[in-house]
Amino acid sequence: MMSREDKEFVKEITPQATDYSQWYIDVILKTQLVDYSPVKGCMVIRPYGFGLWENMQQGLDRRIKDTGHKNAYFPLFIPESLLQKEAEHVEGFAPEVAWVTHGGNEKLAERLVVRPTSETIICEMYSRWIQSWRDLPVLINQWCNVVRWEKVTRPFLRTSEFLWQEGHTAHRNEQEAEEETLKMLEVYRDFVENDLAVPVVKGRKTDNEKFAGALRTYCIEALMSDGKALQAGTSHNLGEHFAKVFDISYLDSDGSLKYVWQTSWGVSTRLVGAIIMVHGDDRGLVLPPKVAPVQVILVPIAPKKVRDEVLAKTGEVYAKLKAEGIRIEMDDREEYSPGWKFNEWEMKGVPLRLEIGPRDLENGQAVLARRDNGEKETVALDDLAARVRSMLEEIQDNMLKKARRFREENTSRTDDYEEFKRIIEEKRGFVISRWCGDPACEQAIKEETKATIRCIPFDTEGLPGKCLHCGSESDKLVYFARAY
Amino acid sequence: MMSREDKEFVKEITPQATDYSQWYIDVILKTQLVDYSPVKGCMVIRPYGFGLWENMQQGLDRRIKDTGHKNAYFPLFIPESLLQKEAEHVEGFAPEVAWVTHGGNEKLAERLVVRPTSETIICEMYSRWIQSWRDLPVLINQWCNVVRWEKVTRPFLRTSEFLWQEGHTAHRNEQEAEEETLKMLEVYRDFVENDLAVPVVKGRKTDNEKFAGALRTYCIEALMSDGKALQAGTSHNLGEHFAKVFDISYLDSDGSLKYVWQTSWGVSTRLVGAIIMVHGDDRGLVLPPKVAPVQVILVPIAPKKVRDEVLAKTGEVYAKLKAEGIRIEMDDREEYSPGWKFNEWEMKGVPLRLEIGPRDLENGQAVLARRDNGEKETVALDDLAARVRSMLEEIQDNMLKKARRFREENTSRTDDYEEFKRIIEEKRGFVISRWCGDPACEQAIKEETKATIRCIPFDTEGLPGKCLHCGSESDKLVYFARAY
Repeated sequence: MMSREDKEFVKEITPQATDYSQWYIDVILKTQLVDYSPVKGCMVIRPYGFGLWENMQQGLDRRIKDTGHKNAYFPLFIPESLLQKEAEHVEGFAPEVAWVTHGGNEKLAERLVVRPTSETIICEMYSRWIQSWRDLPVLINQWCNVVRWEKVTRPFLRTSEFLWQEGHTAHRNEQEAEEETLKMLEVYRDFVENDLAVPVVKGRKTDNEKFAGALRTYCIEALMSDGKALQAGTSHNLGEHFAKVFDISYLDSDGSLKYVWQTSWGVSTRLVGAIIMVHGDDRGLVLPPKVAPVQVILVPIAPKKVRDEVLAKTGEVYAKLKAEGIRIEMDDREEYSPGWKFNEWEMKGVPLRLEIGPRDLENGQAVLARRDNGEKETVALDDLAARVRSMLEEIQDNMLKKARRFREENTSRTDDYEEFKRIIEEKRGFVISRWCGDPACEQAIKEETKATIRCIPFDTEGLPGKCLHCGSESDKLVYFARAY
Repeated sequence: MMSREDKEFVKEITPQATDYSQWYIDVILKTQLVDYSPVKGCMVIRPYGFGLWENMQQGLDRRIKDTGHKNAYFPLFIPESLLQKEAEHVEGFAPEVAWVTHGGNEKLAERLVVRPTSETIICEMYSRWIQSWRDLPVLINQWCNVVRWEKVTRPFLRTSEFLWQEGHTAHRNEQEAEEETLKMLEVYRDFVENDLAVPVVKGRKTDNEKFAGALRTYCIEALMSDGKALQAGTSHNLGEHFAKVFDISYLDSDGSLKYVWQTSWGVSTRLVGAIIMVHGDDRGLVLPPKVAPVQVILVPIAPKKVRDEVLAKTGEVYAKLKAEGIRIEMDDREEYSPGWKFNEWEMKGVPLRLEIGPRDLENGQAVLARRDNGEKETVALDDLAARVRSMLEEIQDNMLKKARRFREENTSRTDDYEEFKRIIEEKRGFVISRWCGDPACEQAIKEETKATIRCIPFDTEGLPGKCLHCGSESDKLVYFARAY
């Protein structure tokens, strides 16, 4: 039997510089964001991690609804025959799906796929629901679990089961579908930058990297603190590809029969990984105030002889801040010292620590300590709620600025392939280079450097130059990086 | 190709008196709460139905958090060996689970079950997380999808996949576990009665009817308008059953090693079925204001020559009520008459209709029409927001009162078996009768009348009398009914 002492957090976290992957695993396990499960590749999201995800969901769900979408729920299972209808789609997903073959004691007449994404089952429904131009646009989103049978997994970043939202819309024509695709990409950028304090580059995926079945895939790409990129969200213009095989057609106002144009777009629990790797440091997590499950941790400094008095007062402060809508918790455990608690809550990434001791009470004040930059400030108790609120905003702003600065410092620009290789190998980060548009060049660069084209940003064409790899004329600047 | 006209709602709903089951199906399909899917027994919850479920989730989630629980997420899949650990549990669930046998192109070494409920996977984690009395209680809830391979299904009431929440807690001893079990039963009662306006009877399940693996199961039971009962929520005291097989033990403060006592409790999308069948009528749904996706439908009465003026004004009214947090929508479609819209929104069960026409505008007033009792009221535009708010409360209250009255009128009391059989067959509803406690009597009554013991209510013992079936001494009054 493990004793309580053994069980207490071992505070040592592997430093990022020593082993970044181990740092990541140490942090997520020790802060109790997640735990491994007995099911290969599937994680358990513990309350602290799920609280973070719930706040993220809330911020994104509001934006999805504000842009006119409604939530719905489609079945977990997809009949094999449906998955197979769109050729590129099945080719992309069939190798990594989980198959249900039996229900109860009976073998199923047709195998079912556990959804890896829901285009096919949703298209099947849309073909029933959409008949006239008056039925369009259809703007639906779904929050759910999906399963992709991954060989190598890492919590949040790549798991066999993950949670996400997937939007699925249908429109009258190409223009409306393209507008929707780009609108939702902008919603993602706004959400990820403003709520998660993670700066992103917006752009288009190359044909190699696009979604299986899509006409065009757009994405937001973020840079982790180890210099590797992470795809943080994608928005697909599906064209008429699915409409044609699922027969989603409508009678237009001019009396003609047309196929709808569709989009789909999604972000997942992978974004939790981005928060961890963009903001975390050797002491643990650093969580953005807007989504932190605990925004303020109140630690009473209460020596035994004044314990009751101090706790009575801190209890009042706690209740007041909570009533003002601040996500605050009070750590009044007797068995730990204040110093131990400071370490633990720093590790858990709580944006603000509020310390109140006997002398503070005498002086009608409290101490606020910031997780993001370590600054401390003494504040009058009367001003506390207002100052907490403004400081949370300052922290949120500072975290985004800091991450932007890091990304700028780690974005290089070269069209010289030798320099490119050196940067990718040594400095890492984003490298902006010219690419001719040939998938063969893209593939060769990937094989030779492990760097992929993360995205083709908007508005960078028109400047003549030469392709990084083949040297042919190119006016296309793209973002390269090694990626998760 | 179906024309727009063909596609419009056919307003005829089969009357309840003609065919209650068909009425139910007509209502849920025509109001677009759900649709059938291509996967046997799985439904699609359409935006209108999901909006209802989201509001329900919000009301219940708040209560679950207010009682100290936190949300988490456990894997969808459960290895076969875990499911088999608790003997009664596997016996109860194995016949109705979906089996995953292949991942990608490979056969799995061990089959996985798609969770029918999550006790086993959660116990496996709790055995790792719980070591000391300081780790207790563990109070976790999960919102997720579960799968039970049902032979006969009906949307919301019994589907192969459904959405629910399942709470899973661990405690130091029997007393704490029992308190938790009853506390959550009360949370369910409060939620179902106050938010859904569905009155319930609280009580305990007989051993025949309890959860597979539980020590004791408590439940809330509601009465549908066809006189059949519906189990609306259950709360289980699991005892040490799972703790013993999963080895969830802890070092108590006195130094002794003990097993935890556990509880689990859940309600599901089945509750949507309760709302439909308790409140609905021959014109369609009647939704309780607290959870209705649309609380107020604004229908402008706008003849062509004054259309722009009327719409300008109703647009203002709409924006004002929306800004006040009222869930309002405006139906300004040109292609339908006001009368057609009235029918459609009545069918969809919107609690309040707000009519504004040219003459109303001249008089600075509007008309409010209630769905629950058909009453109409003219209100000054200046008082509109306040009156809408108070009227929504009146509707909510009235719906609960009306449902309570129905239940009272349909609850009978007899210890005479012949009368009992007549009531169950002809009048239906709840029948309160004495039962000796013998499972054989319970089983015989079930076989002879199709009525089951819905629950053993609290505080009804102590009155001597005779068992309904065998005539032996009994002081136990229980609720019987035919049930969904």
